[in-house]
Amino acid sequence: MSEITAENEKHLVLATGRAHPELAAAIAAELETGLISTTSHTFANGELYVRFNGSVRGSDVFVIQSHTDPINEWLMEQLIMVDALKRASAKRITVVAPFYPYARQDKKHRGREPISARLIADLFKAAGADRIMSVDLHAPQIQGFFDGPVDHLFAMPVLMEHIRKTFDLSQLTVVSPDMGRVRVADVWSDKLGTPLAIIHKRRDPLVPNHVSVHEIVGDVSGRWCLLVDDLIDTGRTIVAASEALKNAGAKGVIVAATHAVFSDPASQILQSDFIDSVVVTDTLPIPMEKRFESLTVLPIAPLLARAIHEVFDDGSVTSMFDGDA
Amino acid sequence: MSEITAENEKHLVLATGRAHPELAAAIAAELETGLISTTSHTFANGELYVRFNGSVRGSDVFVIQSHTDPINEWLMEQLIMVDALKRASAKRITVVAPFYPYARQDKKHRGREPISARLIADLFKAAGADRIMSVDLHAPQIQGFFDGPVDHLFAMPVLMEHIRKTFDLSQLTVVSPDMGRVRVADVWSDKLGTPLAIIHKRRDPLVPNHVSVHEIVGDVSGRWCLLVDDLIDTGRTIVAASEALKNAGAKGVIVAATHAVFSDPASQILQSDFIDSVVVTDTLPIPMEKRFESLTVLPIAPLLARAIHEVFDDGSVTSMFDGDA
Amino acid sequence: MSEITAENEKHLVLATGRAHPELAAAIAAELETGLISTTSHTFANGELYVRFNGSVRGSDVFVIQSHTDPINEWLMEQLIMVDALKRASAKRITVVAPFYPYARQDKKHRGREPISARLIADLFKAAGADRIMSVDLHAPQIQGFFDGPVDHLFAMPVLMEHIRKTFDLSQLTVVSPDMGRVRVADVWSDKLGTPLAIIHKRRDPLVPNHVSVHEIVGDVSGRWCLLVDDLIDTGRTIVAASEALKNAGAKGVIVAATHAVFSDPASQILQSDFIDSVVVTDTLPIPMEKRFESLTVLPIAPLLARAIHEVFDDGSVTSMFDGDA
Amino acid sequence: MSEITAENEKHLVLATGRAHPELAAAIAAELETGLISTTSHTFANGELYVRFNGSVRGSDVFVIQSHTDPINEWLMEQLIMVDALKRASAKRITVVAPFYPYARQDKKHRGREPISARLIADLFKAAGADRIMSVDLHAPQIQGFFDGPVDHLFAMPVLMEHIRKTFDLSQLTVVSPDMGRVRVADVWSDKLGTPLAIIHKRRDPLVPNHVSVHEIVGDVSGRWCLLVDDLIDTGRTIVAASEALKNAGAKGVIVAATHAVFSDPASQILQSDFIDSVVVTDTLPIPMEKRFESLTVLPIAPLLARAIHEVFDDGSVTSMFDGDA
Amino acid sequence: MSEITAENEKHLVLATGRAHPELAAAIAAELETGLISTTSHTFANGELYVRFNGSVRGSDVFVIQSHTDPINEWLMEQLIMVDALKRASAKRITVVAPFYPYARQDKKHRGREPISARLIADLFKAAGADRIMSVDLHAPQIQGFFDGPVDHLFAMPVLMEHIRKTFDLSQLTVVSPDMGRVRVADVWSDKLGTPLAIIHKRRDPLVPNHVSVHEIVGDVSGRWCLLVDDLIDTGRTIVAASEALKNAGAKGVIVAATHAVFSDPASQILQSDFIDSVVVTDTLPIPMEKRFESLTVLPIAPLLARAIHEVFDDGSVTSMFDGDA
Amino acid sequence: MSEITAENEKHLVLATGRAHPELAAAIAAELETGLISTTSHTFANGELYVRFNGSVRGSDVFVIQSHTDPINEWLMEQLIMVDALKRASAKRITVVAPFYPYARQDKKHRGREPISARLIADLFKAAGADRIMSVDLHAPQIQGFFDGPVDHLFAMPVLMEHIRKTFDLSQLTVVSPDMGRVRVADVWSDKLGTPLAIIHKRRDPLVPNHVSVHEIVGDVSGRWCLLVDDLIDTGRTIVAASEALKNAGAKGVIVAATHAVFSDPASQILQSDFIDSVVVTDTLPIPMEKRFESLTVLPIAPLLARAIHEVFDDGSVTSMFDGDA
Repeated sequence: MSEITAENEKHLVLATGRAHPELAAAIAAELETGLISTTSHTFANGELYVRFNGSVRGSDVFVIQSHTDPINEWLMEQLIMVDALKRASAKRITVVAPFYPYARQDKKHRGREPISARLIADLFKAAGADRIMSVDLHAPQIQGFFDGPVDHLFAMPVLMEHIRKTFDLSQLTVVSPDMGRVRVADVWSDKLGTPLAIIHKRRDPLVPNHVSVHEIVGDVSGRWCLLVDDLIDTGRTIVAASEALKNAGAKGVIVAATHAVFSDPASQILQSDFIDSVVVTDTLPIPMEKRFESLTVLPIAPLLARAIHEVFDDGSVTSMFDGDA
Repeated sequence: MSEITAENEKHLVLATGRAHPELAAAIAAELETGLISTTSHTFANGELYVRFNGSVRGSDVFVIQSHTDPINEWLMEQLIMVDALKRASAKRITVVAPFYPYARQDKKHRGREPISARLIADLFKAAGADRIMSVDLHAPQIQGFFDGPVDHLFAMPVLMEHIRKTFDLSQLTVVSPDMGRVRVADVWSDKLGTPLAIIHKRRDPLVPNHVSVHEIVGDVSGRWCLLVDDLIDTGRTIVAASEALKNAGAKGVIVAATHAVFSDPASQILQSDFIDSVVVTDTLPIPMEKRFESLTVLPIAPLLARAIHEVFDDGSVTSMFDGDA
Repeated sequence: MSEITAENEKHLVLATGRAHPELAAAIAAELETGLISTTSHTFANGELYVRFNGSVRGSDVFVIQSHTDPINEWLMEQLIMVDALKRASAKRITVVAPFYPYARQDKKHRGREPISARLIADLFKAAGADRIMSVDLHAPQIQGFFDGPVDHLFAMPVLMEHIRKTFDLSQLTVVSPDMGRVRVADVWSDKLGTPLAIIHKRRDPLVPNHVSVHEIVGDVSGRWCLLVDDLIDTGRTIVAASEALKNAGAKGVIVAATHAVFSDPASQILQSDFIDSVVVTDTLPIPMEKRFESLTVLPIAPLLARAIHEVFDDGSVTSMFDGDA
Repeated sequence: MSEITAENEKHLVLATGRAHPELAAAIAAELETGLISTTSHTFANGELYVRFNGSVRGSDVFVIQSHTDPINEWLMEQLIMVDALKRASAKRITVVAPFYPYARQDKKHRGREPISARLIADLFKAAGADRIMSVDLHAPQIQGFFDGPVDHLFAMPVLMEHIRKTFDLSQLTVVSPDMGRVRVADVWSDKLGTPLAIIHKRRDPLVPNHVSVHEIVGDVSGRWCLLVDDLIDTGRTIVAASEALKNAGAKGVIVAATHAVFSDPASQILQSDFIDSVVVTDTLPIPMEKRFESLTVLPIAPLLARAIHEVFDDGSVTSMFDGDA
Repeated sequence: MSEITAENEKHLVLATGRAHPELAAAIAAELETGLISTTSHTFANGELYVRFNGSVRGSDVFVIQSHTDPINEWLMEQLIMVDALKRASAKRITVVAPFYPYARQDKKHRGREPISARLIADLFKAAGADRIMSVDLHAPQIQGFFDGPVDHLFAMPVLMEHIRKTFDLSQLTVVSPDMGRVRVADVWSDKLGTPLAIIHKRRDPLVPNHVSVHEIVGDVSGRWCLLVDDLIDTGRTIVAASEALKNAGAKGVIVAATHAVFSDPASQILQSDFIDSVVVTDTLPIPMEKRFESLTVLPIAPLLARAIHEVFDDGSVTSMFDGDA
Repeated sequence: MSEITAENEKHLVLATGRAHPELAAAIAAELETGLISTTSHTFANGELYVRFNGSVRGSDVFVIQSHTDPINEWLMEQLIMVDALKRASAKRITVVAPFYPYARQDKKHRGREPISARLIADLFKAAGADRIMSVDLHAPQIQGFFDGPVDHLFAMPVLMEHIRKTFDLSQLTVVSPDMGRVRVADVWSDKLGTPLAIIHKRRDPLVPNHVSVHEIVGDVSGRWCLLVDDLIDTGRTIVAASEALKNAGAKGVIVAATHAVFSDPASQILQSDFIDSVVVTDTLPIPMEKRFESLTVLPIAPLLARAIHEVFDDGSVTSMFDGDA
């Protein structure tokens, strides 16, 4: 009797759903590899179908999907992919969700509400995901919703590098668009070494029925204001904030955000006179018709590719952020 | 010190998603009660929100949803409802899914496919469902996919009662539209005491490249043929079968199915000369524009209402079907 | 053969650990019932022992413990109690943790940190807890850490009632002690109809090496300032904030917080000239030697007792807070 | 809209496997009720089938099975019954296993052994059991193998009552048949107020190759010796011990044990001259051909019936044993 | 400090229960390795014991067992082996069950039945199995019963190769013995390029009380009929079908099935004049006394060995079946 | 597209809590490696904090902690470490608990007690531990409390080697200090080839109210008595036993135990005239002030280091104990 032993190699497999194939392709290009061939289609009644056309047995699979509208379709597609991978004996399955779906429903505001962000973590787990990778979670507590490792990446270095190269920091004031994002703005202001201002929405005491005014805390007159947020959805908050800044004498307004959700009418209203420049990443697909002249889209693929490589290689994702992760 | 004890009453709560509110309303009417007030909406980026406007603490809640297109939306809505109910201390949560979503993906036909019907059961479980109620599962094995009780209801008595009242049984032959549904047709033929025929699709040996012919097994000439199936999706199989029957001399063709999925072009092609009558139930919503003259829609609400009542009352669902369940 | 059926009564049982027996006694008194007799002791090597001296079979048990220093002792004691109750066939076990332990470790600030607040939820679950009841969670996302219902109570009405009765609201300005608590202060200011101010710690640009100054945003000169927070631990932040307020011309400083952690040197430094009044609740025990003249301790037992009663009775905890829960 | 509420009655259902129907019938008789009608059979290839012929929905079901040879058959039958009950919506399922199967494999004696007693607990859990009821577990730690309540009953009062009535206690010495059962014998001796002796098997220093001698510790000459154990399997240990006692001058030997496993050749060799009386209970079936004149079989049904009643009624099983449970 | 790293080799270990040691030996021979030395025995009361005599730490273990009568014994033996392997730190445990036990109980035919095939999957999971390998599952949905990978192998290529070599395909008609196996017969007929016939059992309308007749659909007169099924249990269905075929003028009848359950009286009645040849595999042991002249037993070991090798080697099991798996 | 594959190396990481850093350092020294740098501290209110200062991604981590007083602190610290490791993507986490906490609470002595030893296993599992390593469990059944591998090491060879070297075996009698430890003493006596004696505590029949006397079974007069136990807590049992032995004429008394819990007043009273020598290992820290002249502390690090190496290397822990483990 001879013993059967073998070397235990690891294999990296990149898979992608249909939500944002360009991002997956860019990640693969960064890693100088390809995406696994996948058959995906939607049946007449809306049910989805996925099949992988090559073996994934024993592989370390990263399932990339961008959770853009129709978000529930893409979520289900990713869950179905994870189920198929689990049953096909993938060794480890990492859900790559650059924009974590339902992240804003991370708590109960009132009784009898769901905590959908936790539900999402449970659904990924139930389908068979071993780990999640995401960028700029709306609340860092979401990491605690998943029973396993969550690789939380930060787009700030990507955005900041662009800001540093493009604008004169001495003219810049970082602005938080509301009370809820102050902590993020604080970090930006700290890292850039620039002043901080805050916009505070409050009821106008002179007008009944909850009409709110935008109070600006801090000095913005004659300054270039950098409004920072994790995401831009309809853009209404950002545009109103920009208007208030310009009214308060700001020389210019730059908006920087990681996730370009860009629900209507975002791409229309962001082309406002109050806003001079918008900088986002492509964690979510931004179709051509939603792009506009003052918009800069920075590629997120290098960051994701590097993190995937670190995970595959048992390196350190933390070290990618100089100890900030 | 006085002991605190209380009578342990049970409360029935009916909740519904937005896919098929008429069905939920009909079930409530049958039970002579109402539906819990619910706030549901879809955010700009496609994320869903649900909140219940009254207490469900300690209640026996039935969450009704019809899994019609867009099926993944309605599935997520139901999962979110279950999560909210779990966190709001409902005592027991029953998912009522008259048409079980992804039921046809109940096995791996090839390697690296998902078993989506099992995944669905796992997702319901992960969200917090204690039990599932469904009608005419595509394969009875799906009951085994859920780790808990599944109340499997049969629409056959509803459909059959209509057939008995409307058609002359002595003229009727039950027909299975393909090899896969023979067992169901067999039960119909047995219960109605009528002959059975089968349609067998096979390659035409005279024509290369997989052209198939419909071979009819059994005598249909001069008979009224009752084609039975669990669901009608695009209708193509049924129409082709009907044509074959008419070509073989059938006097008339009646189609009976539980689930009217009616994906395009079903409602157009079912109005074929080959088909004289179509009978379905309303487990799925059938919008007015998809209805046609020869279509009869039987209400499924009485069956679901009775089953919900038996479940709530610790009665017997099995006994609803004469011991056949 | 005669059927054996019985009425299904429910029984409320209150149990308590040894951390804060006065609170448990007060809750029992509010509910006009008693606490279950319990034998608890600590073995020579620090291991704990608990036994219940009466039957809990089929009961709805609430296990009250205050997570004060030595917090890990009291946590283990509560876990051991839950284990004993599970094995003794309690029907439902609710962990009552007025101050949720490790709540401030609710996220990873850096790589390779624990998320201890999630761990706590997992430990309670593993021991057998069905539900958690807590007051003023440090972050509302913690509700999502537990896989089951969390009854999140708010002490704000209790604290606010005292403030309304004791102080002249027209003279009051609500102040957030730092950027992280602005949202809470915003709600207070909104409910009391008073102005809001914020204290912003930032690096002093004139002094190197991270020396910080307290910048006050908003007008506090000549005002009574109400500093609000969820907890007071060592008190250093609060005292520094109060000093800044007084230096800025505040007429008086009142501090209101739910959880009086009061780690050393809190009770010494809170007796500062900068602070006129401190109002807290007794979610945590405050020994006599830590109390001081300007301290008001409001009883939390009525709130907890009412919530326990609502939970036992399948009432609504949400409605206790007028739709704010 | 009218609310649907109902009184929440509880129903007791007794079910039994085919291993020891007399015991189940006796328990039912004690409770003045009947057993649920059940269809059970064994297919030609050894697979088992079970169906319950009446509704168990919402019931508190006790599934009685005696784990006698063929023990794996009866174990599987019970697991299948539990699965059927779970899927049929029983509210609570209690496995009644008077003799816990595989109890003696409660630890690893050597590497790469199973811990089958833990496995059994896991299998019951996986099938859907909520609770276990058993008599005189071989090791009390087995209670800790199940993740849920275990009602551990003691047959000692039943056996002891018989001993007290039948023998002259002043003449009695309690004897442990080996080092491993000393603790049980100690309790007997304490409760009966009689002396204790111990039999110690050790290698005979005069004879090579592990020949062992029975050393008797304590005075047995002229005494009636009561050998106590939890079970009698092949009887060899007991017979050897009895011989040693008689050789040491014992006037008589009585054997008392809870579980009469009675594997061959137990019933033959227990009819030895060294043994005057054997007292057991009927936790396991003892067929007529295995009974003999000096054997007394005490009924265990009253104990089990009382415990089932206490469990159903939310009473106290502990109190059945005067605080000894 | 020096880092401790090591190459991560994988080791294949084959273990077998006592049901069908010849099959395990044949698999080992195919793989040119041996079986791990195992101590197994049955205690006097029917309890089983297993111990592995060599280290399995970190190994990829395949636990081979054939589920023949006494099927529950062998099932428990395999569960106990899995438990022992889990506790002995095997890295991955694959249950090899060539004939899946209880596969025919894959759904509830009536209320209050178990779904034993799902229960089996749950028991394997509870014991610690990571994956299942099986041949020709009775229903493909059983794959969905296990929460993990199931390697589903097909014996059809093995059986078909024999048929091709032994019989004149131009003379052959594939026959389904009843309505339930039509799909399998369809695949056979498709692959062999031969005609298809179906046997339909129906009530004889001329005879009351459920007497059934065998109706043959398709032309069998003068043909060699190949009856195909997944298993032969008592053989009664097959013999009756063969009689009907011969009565209908069939020239010869060949029976091909994967699993030779061969419960009595199978081996007697299969030696019928109606049957000319029986071809099976040895997924189950066929003792000499059950073999007969017209029986051909094809070895399944090569198929299992190849699949085990693919699994161990992270190859593709799907590719073994040319895309049919 | 190029495939990305990599060699799958394994890395050993040793981590330690703060309870007994000397032991961890000694283990690391034995393995000729270091401990991972860890930041640990205790917040003012008793909450603990841990962070690892280097990557553990993909590593095989052993978390060493000694469960000495304050035992609950150290337990929580270890749980928090495990949580942090799980979230930091460690591949496998082994809890090294040389003295298993709460091991003596391994069963319910009475109703409504916890089984804390099982709870501990559940807590480790909930935090994310894959495996446990421990020395001389109080009851071997505790291995069955954990759902996964438990590496159970024995200190007996370490202690015995010292005894053999230091004392004249021909003069030695092994003594069990009470009925509960007889089995351990039996193994010692067997291995050393020395006589055995037992101390039996029983009520003095002459004195009412549970005054107990120490009865010595076996011959100790003129002998050197080796009292063996798994642990010494307060030392009272051991000192009383030693006194009884000396009173019975023993020439000398040696005490050998694995775990030196040494709760007060152990180190005082063990310096009794009745005891000549105490031999323990350092599974628990023994501070200088608790050491005394007649105490010998044997290092346990070599044993733990060797076991860790075997586990890391997929070797055999069993073989370390000559087949006895």
